[in-house]
Amino acid sequence: MICKNLAVQGDDLFFAGRKTKDLVKKYGSPLYVLDEERLRENMRLYARSMKQAFGKEAKPLYAGKANCITAIHRLAKEEKIGIDVVSSGEIATALKAGFPLKNAYFHSNNKTDEDIAFAMQHRIGYFVVDNAEEVEAIEKEAASLGIRQKILLRLTPGIDPHTYEAVSTGKVDSKFGSAIETGQAEEITRLALSKEHVELCGFHCHVGSQVFDSDIFVRAADSMLSFLAEMRQKTGFLAGELDLGGGYGVRYCESDPVIDIEKNILQVGEFVHEKCRELGIPVPAIRMEPGRSIVADAGLTLYTVGTVKRIRGYKNYVSVDGGMTDNPRYALYGSPYTVYIANKMQEETTMTADVVGRCCESGDIIQPGVAVPESVQRGDIVAVLTTGAYNYSMASNYNRVPRPAVVMLGKDEEKIVVRRETLEDLLRGDL
Amino acid sequence: MICKNLAVQGDDLFFAGRKTKDLVKKYGSPLYVLDEERLRENMRLYARSMKQAFGKEAKPLYAGKANCITAIHRLAKEEKIGIDVVSSGEIATALKAGFPLKNAYFHSNNKTDEDIAFAMQHRIGYFVVDNAEEVEAIEKEAASLGIRQKILLRLTPGIDPHTYEAVSTGKVDSKFGSAIETGQAEEITRLALSKEHVELCGFHCHVGSQVFDSDIFVRAADSMLSFLAEMRQKTGFLAGELDLGGGYGVRYCESDPVIDIEKNILQVGEFVHEKCRELGIPVPAIRMEPGRSIVADAGLTLYTVGTVKRIRGYKNYVSVDGGMTDNPRYALYGSPYTVYIANKMQEETTMTADVVGRCCESGDIIQPGVAVPESVQRGDIVAVLTTGAYNYSMASNYNRVPRPAVVMLGKDEEKIVVRRETLEDLLRGDL
Repeated sequence: MICKNLAVQGDDLFFAGRKTKDLVKKYGSPLYVLDEERLRENMRLYARSMKQAFGKEAKPLYAGKANCITAIHRLAKEEKIGIDVVSSGEIATALKAGFPLKNAYFHSNNKTDEDIAFAMQHRIGYFVVDNAEEVEAIEKEAASLGIRQKILLRLTPGIDPHTYEAVSTGKVDSKFGSAIETGQAEEITRLALSKEHVELCGFHCHVGSQVFDSDIFVRAADSMLSFLAEMRQKTGFLAGELDLGGGYGVRYCESDPVIDIEKNILQVGEFVHEKCRELGIPVPAIRMEPGRSIVADAGLTLYTVGTVKRIRGYKNYVSVDGGMTDNPRYALYGSPYTVYIANKMQEETTMTADVVGRCCESGDIIQPGVAVPESVQRGDIVAVLTTGAYNYSMASNYNRVPRPAVVMLGKDEEKIVVRRETLEDLLRGDL
Repeated sequence: MICKNLAVQGDDLFFAGRKTKDLVKKYGSPLYVLDEERLRENMRLYARSMKQAFGKEAKPLYAGKANCITAIHRLAKEEKIGIDVVSSGEIATALKAGFPLKNAYFHSNNKTDEDIAFAMQHRIGYFVVDNAEEVEAIEKEAASLGIRQKILLRLTPGIDPHTYEAVSTGKVDSKFGSAIETGQAEEITRLALSKEHVELCGFHCHVGSQVFDSDIFVRAADSMLSFLAEMRQKTGFLAGELDLGGGYGVRYCESDPVIDIEKNILQVGEFVHEKCRELGIPVPAIRMEPGRSIVADAGLTLYTVGTVKRIRGYKNYVSVDGGMTDNPRYALYGSPYTVYIANKMQEETTMTADVVGRCCESGDIIQPGVAVPESVQRGDIVAVLTTGAYNYSMASNYNRVPRPAVVMLGKDEEKIVVRRETLEDLLRGDL
């Protein structure tokens, strides 16, 4: 199976040691489940590999936008990794989790003045500054508080990671960051260095999500380290931190490549050491920002089958009690997913069906062309694998459908970490 | 301008008689605004035209999924039109609005058993039944309550409306309804007629959204009326209601065709009368389900400009304080929108920029290639037109961004009808 936290026993799919059918019986459906041990393992894998590859100052920052809930930030705190946050809402989540904000890095192409004030009031560790306007806004706010605010500058090294357009952000033509190629990266570096209440600590880049080999990080490090050396030469400023962004790809389907994250990171480490020697600079404290690769395979979504439709001569449809409201990724990107009828794992999958949601919208598809047993029927359980990332965080109330609960499965105990929305929740804001 | 509720005075864009800049000052941004008079006009246009075209029994059903909030359902009640609902959440919204549920039609390809029980408990007027399983489930629930439940049957007449794939639902290959072509429509008719606690009142079809001429409704009516006559002949059952679904297209851009809804409906009316004479059947009570064409041009979204990025030799970006969280339609469908810098309406638009959102995602684009004044800067107001439909209803909390408020602008007064979400709202479910 795709991930080792999955198993089959008899007719049933097990996840993190639990029979999926029993989870639906206990908590209802649709249901998001998270595997606590897998979350911790993924966090530890990055933390350990990065220290080994880059030195003891290196650390991963969990990119919370993949799944920003208090329970995961609590784990990040316990595992002593950093986080990146992208809004006041994500900062509030970290605060609720008791996460030490000095280890938080605040991203966004467009932080509002209110966001900047909120973050600084709560003593956020770092701003990852996107543009010159933001340098000015931070200088102003920090001056009013009488503090010196640490920042990294987000740069675009001009690398196209050849992944999906929607997740490619390291190209020069991007809404994010300042481009090295156009000279704007140097301009913003000089601007930041000129500010009294801004402490420039280093640089950041993000070349895209779903990266499947070390080469793209090597190229990003190559470009960024050269820039570090160039800035030292031109301005005397030597960056102490280099944030290479996120993150390694995850396997949604059996056909996706298997990736050895540890080995890949060690390869990037070798390159970074060599390049720094060559440039005559010390190895900076390296950051990476895994989000998807921390949470995706630690998550699973369970649905109950409703309508099963066999249109003679055309196609079959298996409808579930959720859909694009809890997982909009097929609608948005045509994303692949592995889907099982979780209570009929032993049956031959002789029928092909589109697994669709309950929304009044043709595009509400979880996954087309899924192989299912001929016997699939109302009441069966559907498991969609690898949904820990960008599912709950992107969920909506379209069609006034409440968002599902999230249950965390620990080694011995389990608990609801986000409760299911109620009809009252949906109507709370209506006046 | 695209809609007559828009005007320019001096530098400013006005909507429903209000200076947009003042609305942002008063209510903050991002902000959804709704024009009450326009909503009422759109509802009345359908109600009046349909009675004229089809007879006094005809009426529109507002398709709430376009924008399901209590305040709009209150207007639907006052204007004495029907509604369609697609979930328990939408039924709860109608109940909160005091909408008489006997005029509500419950749609969905996959109503759960809980939905069916909830709807019947609140004495919903009609179920629009999608499939045979649902007939059985309704029969069972109605029997247990000792009632006879009115239903329509959703059929697929096999018409491709040549609109976007995602909004095309009248084809035989669809997750919705039972196909006439395959004989499954007749089967489900006979099934419904055999049930003691089910009262079959008629048929429904929906050939797709964003329809720009009467021809598609004529073809749908042609197919459906023939089926009505065929069923009378074969089973003796004469349908009293025919629901032709929704809805006429709306203009998102100046280049979209101008459509005369009244004239189009009258043309469909002529055809229906002629066809019924030909088939020797009385004209059934016609329903249509406009959603988008009721609310889209009654809505506008206002944002404040944050970062303005000019990447020399590449592209320009204007970032706003919302994005795919409050309007995911460009991300989902590449939908076109008309965008203005609402406080600089007199300036020449000599610069081209992508208007992008605040989310950490490259695909977070409101609209690419927008003509804006060269002077565009932080603090300016961006107006995105025609956002009344499928914006608030599809909004998410991605990046933990709170959903904006909705303000209803009446002729003389205005009020917040959905309050802005708070950080507390975002964290309410986290345990």
